[in-house]
This record gives sequence, structure tokens and C-alpha cells, in this order.
Amino acid sequence: MAVSGAAVRVATEQLPVRTIRQASLLLGVDLGGGHMSAALVDQAGRIIQRRKAPTAVESGPDGIISSIVELLREVISVSGATKRELAGIGLGIPGLIDSSLGLSIFSPNLFWHNVQVVRPIEREFNLPTFMDNDVRCATLAEAWYGAGRGVSNLICLTIGTGIGSGLMLEGQLVRGATESAGEIGHMTIEKDGPPCNCGNRGCLEALAAGPAIARRAREAVNRGVDTVMVAMVGGQVDRIDASVVAQAARQGDPVAWEIIELTALYLGIGIANYINLVNPELVIIGGGVAQAGELLLAPIRRVVGQRAMKVQAAAVRVVPARLGEDAGVIGAAALVLERLGESGPRAE
Amino acid sequence: MAVSGAAVRVATEQLPVRTIRQASLLLGVDLGGGHMSAALVDQAGRIIQRRKAPTAVESGPDGIISSIVELLREVISVSGATKRELAGIGLGIPGLIDSSLGLSIFSPNLFWHNVQVVRPIEREFNLPTFMDNDVRCATLAEAWYGAGRGVSNLICLTIGTGIGSGLMLEGQLVRGATESAGEIGHMTIEKDGPPCNCGNRGCLEALAAGPAIARRAREAVNRGVDTVMVAMVGGQVDRIDASVVAQAARQGDPVAWEIIELTALYLGIGIANYINLVNPELVIIGGGVAQAGELLLAPIRRVVGQRAMKVQAAAVRVVPARLGEDAGVIGAAALVLERLGESGPRAE
Repeated sequence: MAVSGAAVRVATEQLPVRTIRQASLLLGVDLGGGHMSAALVDQAGRIIQRRKAPTAVESGPDGIISSIVELLREVISVSGATKRELAGIGLGIPGLIDSSLGLSIFSPNLFWHNVQVVRPIEREFNLPTFMDNDVRCATLAEAWYGAGRGVSNLICLTIGTGIGSGLMLEGQLVRGATESAGEIGHMTIEKDGPPCNCGNRGCLEALAAGPAIARRAREAVNRGVDTVMVAMVGGQVDRIDASVVAQAARQGDPVAWEIIELTALYLGIGIANYINLVNPELVIIGGGVAQAGELLLAPIRRVVGQRAMKVQAAAVRVVPARLGEDAGVIGAAALVLERLGESGPRAE
Repeated sequence: MAVSGAAVRVATEQLPVRTIRQASLLLGVDLGGGHMSAALVDQAGRIIQRRKAPTAVESGPDGIISSIVELLREVISVSGATKRELAGIGLGIPGLIDSSLGLSIFSPNLFWHNVQVVRPIEREFNLPTFMDNDVRCATLAEAWYGAGRGVSNLICLTIGTGIGSGLMLEGQLVRGATESAGEIGHMTIEKDGPPCNCGNRGCLEALAAGPAIARRAREAVNRGVDTVMVAMVGGQVDRIDASVVAQAARQGDPVAWEIIELTALYLGIGIANYINLVNPELVIIGGGVAQAGELLLAPIRRVVGQRAMKVQAAAVRVVPARLGEDAGVIGAAALVLERLGESGPRAE
């Protein structure tokens, strides 16, 4: 079911009523499988104070939630913010969620199944607390404070070990019937392509995310193809990753270059298909693999120009993300504004 | 640019102010390359009176617009509706449009380029007049009065000589930055597939619309494959079309059956990709090719179950359209309600 404002309000109805204007500061948490960040953010999307910690996945849901609480306490205490200044807490959680129930339904990175995340944190701080998918938080941040400022219709992709996206239409985040919208990573691009973790074959993620890029490079080396990448990793072929491929391509290595071109072809097809369906003004590309920058963006733009319909292609720009790793935690904080009914960031 | 309510209002500001409640009847026009329909429709989506006429494409924009006016006059006069009862006129126009300017920007079926459609009709009847793409009108009709009643997040596909779609999210039609959203027909499904009219290769439309189905059957016959389809068209192979293939498949012809299966595979991949991106509750399938019914829908559902992500697949139903050819004209009429700010059909 979609998240209705009413359902969210149920969880917060006994909390002290504060208007956004009185309480101007936002708390955000970006929870990842490797580490977590908490930050105090103002309504212009600026980070005032931030803390980072490793995510101790082995400590289980209670342990992780305790760490989040501790991190938030630190951020608040170091910043000197008073309770009256805090509008609420936003949580960016990886995987499948039910935000109206405050649940992480399934998060493979955290080994979580049906974990109640919102209530313990809301109880601890006595502040309105909201959650969303991590990619959607990043999308909100880029849309309001990053590469998408002033744009109402946009797609924000993250390309790393996986490929995900958030979609904003007419200024509103699209969540879908079960809050699962945006799964471009599992778009079938090659119907008989390699198997994907999701059970399908030929998904964009299986063809063009970091691991696929690295796999192609290693396969080339193992076939005996001559490439500078072998020397770059001191002969340890299993150390070749997507960033090594990007670096080698930049140095003019033809093998690496061909892998980047093929990756961009797959990504460009996926993005063109997405553009044809939702006709956005902007496609923002971020994530680890996207750090390859123009090396990857330029051929993606070329493929989009060839594959998207003329009108859609002419209406859209493909640009890099601006907020880098901060997008997640800023977007989680911005979620408080979005869920409390603000349709955009507050002007400074 | 997106159509803002404000922009639409500019065109109608000097028209007599009527509330939807006073003026309860809607006029709709469905303009196609072959014929046009006009109808008087009530707010429950029922057709009260309708007229149909061939579209004389050779008479040019002025000739066609005159025919539309004439058809509307007939519908009004035969129905006996008074001016006070009419809330407005909605026009469903094929191809690319700019609804805020009232323009048909490009319609290959009609050979139209930048034709002003809304103003002459609005002037003639002195009624608020709106336009949208024909597929989006059909989507509105199915959503409000057809297979999508009560559903907020849905996709409505039409599969005929082309493949198009409309998208409704949270009860609102998605139009996109240049009113071009929904172009699933030009989703790349086979990156090295057959050329498409749009300039790309391997588009869904080039693989799975009526002409592609017919082409595959004719190619099989020309290869000398034994099939009942030859007898069905009295040996005139060029008379084999998608409906002949469907009929032969129903009779158990293995060649026709294989073509239907392949068509459903392509359609299922395209629909699964769409579902993964927007996470709808419902996919409605209509259009000429969809008249094959369960023959095509059953294998499409199977492919969607295999190719869409588990959560999305579990949340969605794939169903046939209910309104048939009437969807276009009913949806055009409903556009009047939608554009005058009604968020759904009026209860009876």
C-alpha cells in the first residue's frame, strides 16, 4: 500500500506539536551495510554536524538501532541544538520497507527481516520519525539541494555494486503501490543475459554494475588479453575493480575502454527506456561507479540520444550527482520536511 | 513543459463560468487516422449519444476540424442537451501535443504539424475545451470507469498497429516534461533487433505490435513451414494479420502458437520493466492485438511473474481493458472533469 499522510500521522499523534518554522533543524540517518552516518541538517540542506560509525551487522537489529541512537545523541550534543529546534528524524534504510508501519521488511545488506526501526527511535527522542528507502532519500537530496534544484521531473540513479533509482514527478517522490518504485537495476536488457541475484536473467545490474565491470576485466585478463590493468594491480587479478577499469580506460587502455563502452551501452539503453516512460527533464547519475565521471557519462549521453525518442531525448539532460556520499544523510533529514508536508526546501 | 492548471485557464478565462455541478454533461472527441467519434457522456462515464465519421485526412486540418465541429453539433442536437448542461469538450488527439497551447505538434497519422486544435472548437461552442493524447484519454477512461475503478496506481497499455501506454500514479495521470510520458512502444528490448520507425532498433513495437506478429507469420509461410494460416486466408499470404495468427493459435496451430508465445515474451519483458520502475497495482491491456484475450494475457502474466521483481510482481494484476473502442471518446470527455480539477469520477 502507498504511504498516506494519515498513516504516518498515527505514529506521531502523541508527539509534541511543533511547526517546521519553530523547529528548524532536521536529523538524518543513512544506514548502510558497511557504515552508518547521522547528521544534523538545516532546511537549506547544509550539514551542521555529522558522525559516522561502522555498521556492526553481527550485532543484529537491536545492536544497530542502539548504535543509531548513540550516533544521533552525539550529533545533537556536539551541535548544542536544543530539543525545541529539532523538527524530526529521517531514516534512510536499504532494501524493502513499509514506511507507514516503520518496518524494514527485507534488507539483504543488513540481514534484516521485518525489523521495527521507526518506533524505538521515535520513542527514544520523542520526535516525529520517518523512514524511506536509501536511494529515494538520495533522490530527495539531489532534487532539493543538489543537481536537481528547481527541476520537477527527474530520475536519480545510483550505480555502484547495485543499480537503483529514485523518481520525482511534478515535484513529488514516486513510491509506488508497495514503495518499490525505481528498480531500474532489474530491468531486463538482454533477455538471455547472465543470471541476476533477483532470479531473473540479463538485468541491468547484472550487466553494468561494479561487479559486472570488474568481472569483464578479469575475464579478459584470464583470456590472456594484454592490458595495463594487470600491472595496475601488481598482477593480483582479483584486485581489479570498476575503478581500476575506469583508471585504465583514462590511460587509453583499449580493453578497459571497450568495457566502459559496453557498460555505457547497457546503462544508456536502460536510461533511455526509463526516459521514454516518464519523460523527465533531468537524469542525475551518482554512486561509486559514476565516479568515472565523463568517461562514462559521455557515452551514456550518446546512447540515450540514439535510443530515446527524439522529443524525450531533446527534453532531458544527463548530469552527475552533486552531493556525493552526503546525499543519503541529507535526503534522510529532508524526509522530515517532505513528510510533514513541505513540497520543497525552504528558501534560506 | 508540463501543463499547469494556470496555463489551461488562460485559454478559458473569458468563457462563461459554470460549475461542474450545474453543467453535468461532457463532450468527448476521439480523433483517429481512420475515423473520428464524438459523444455526449455523463459524469458516470456513460455514453448518452454518439456519432462516428470517417476522418478525411486529405481534407487537411481545417477540413478535419470542421468535421469535428459538425459531429459535435449533431451529438448535441440529437441528444437535446441544452447549453447550460454542458461542462466542456475534451479532445483525444493522436501523436505529440502541447495541451497548454492547444496544439497538435506532430501527428503522423493525420499528417499534422503544429495545428491549433483547441481554439477553433472552443470558439465555435463557447465551452471550456481541453486536449490530450489519445492513449492518455483511454487510460483516464479505464481508470475512472473501466478496469481500473478504485485503483490509484496503474498502467494502461494499448497494443495494436503501435504500442502505447498511459500511466496513473496516486490517482493522477503522468504527462511528463513534454507530455510524452508512457512510450513503452519504443523501449529497447533487443539491442540489435529489427529497425523501428522511430530510428532506434529492437523497440517493443517493432517486435510485438500487430505488424510484427503478421510479419513473423508471413515469413514462416514463405520459408515453407506448414501452417493452417495459409488455408485461413485462402492462400493470400499478405492477408495474414495478427487476428489470423491469434485464431490459428486458438485452433492449436504450432506455428501461430510459437509466434504468440514470442510476442508475449517481448510484451512481458516490456511490462515487467515498466512494473519494476513504477510499482503499479494494475496493468490494463487493450487495443486490437489485445483482443486475442487470455491467449496473449496468460503467457504475458507468466513472463511478468518471472521477470518483474518479486514484490512488484506480487502487488500487480494484469487484466484486459473493459471499455473497448469507447475508451478513447469516454476518456476525452472525462478530461473535462480532470482538467477542471476533479480528482476522480463523480459518484452516481
